[in-house]
Amino acid sequence: MSDTLFAKIIRREIPADIVYEDESVLAFRDIHPQAPVHVLFIPKTPVATLNDLTEADAPGIGRLVLAATHFAKAEGLAEDGYRLVINCNRDGGQTVYHLHLHLLAGRAMQWPPG
Amino acid sequence: MSDTLFAKIIRREIPADIVYEDESVLAFRDIHPQAPVHVLFIPKTPVATLNDLTEADAPGIGRLVLAATHFAKAEGLAEDGYRLVINCNRDGGQTVYHLHLHLLAGRAMQWPPG
Repeated sequence: MSDTLFAKIIRREIPADIVYEDESVLAFRDIHPQAPVHVLFIPKTPVATLNDLTEADAPGIGRLVLAATHFAKAEGLAEDGYRLVINCNRDGGQTVYHLHLHLLAGRAMQWPPG
Repeated sequence: MSDTLFAKIIRREIPADIVYEDESVLAFRDIHPQAPVHVLFIPKTPVATLNDLTEADAPGIGRLVLAATHFAKAEGLAEDGYRLVINCNRDGGQTVYHLHLHLLAGRAMQWPPG
């Protein structure tokens, strides 16, 4: 398994603006934010892409989504709303090959979603 | 619980171009596609928004994501890639209050994601 930027953030080898953490999930602000609030949620156990998930990963992916909802509620973003995005491979726009979920909030998101 | 368009699709009361179904998930093509492939994955047990999820829903949400990856692989979209999107409330751009996951593929998705 290749070591990514995100693995280094999990190991605190490089700095990040960490905003949420639980047993299985770490979250930090995107360094190139696309909205007033733009946070990345990553599983601490790395998986490269959505295509690499197996059925056994379903609860873990669900916890990644739930972590984002917890954060949104804690930050007062839930009522106005937010968008969650996961990119897979080139056409999806994936740039780091450690699966991550984007939470974008603080403005009205547009359609299409990219 | 209010009855949505998607509940009617689940009950086959209104037509939809259904492309995937398993015990807990139904998927059909978006009637206003934003990419060559644009499919909505919905849980058969309705929940209005991401904010309404509880910890007990984590496996179910994970299965919704896994269903999208199964579809992507079956349709030959996995290698080129795709984007998954869930909108919550007004700022997220949610229009139907039955939680749904968008899969968009078949073109290079842009950034920001809306």
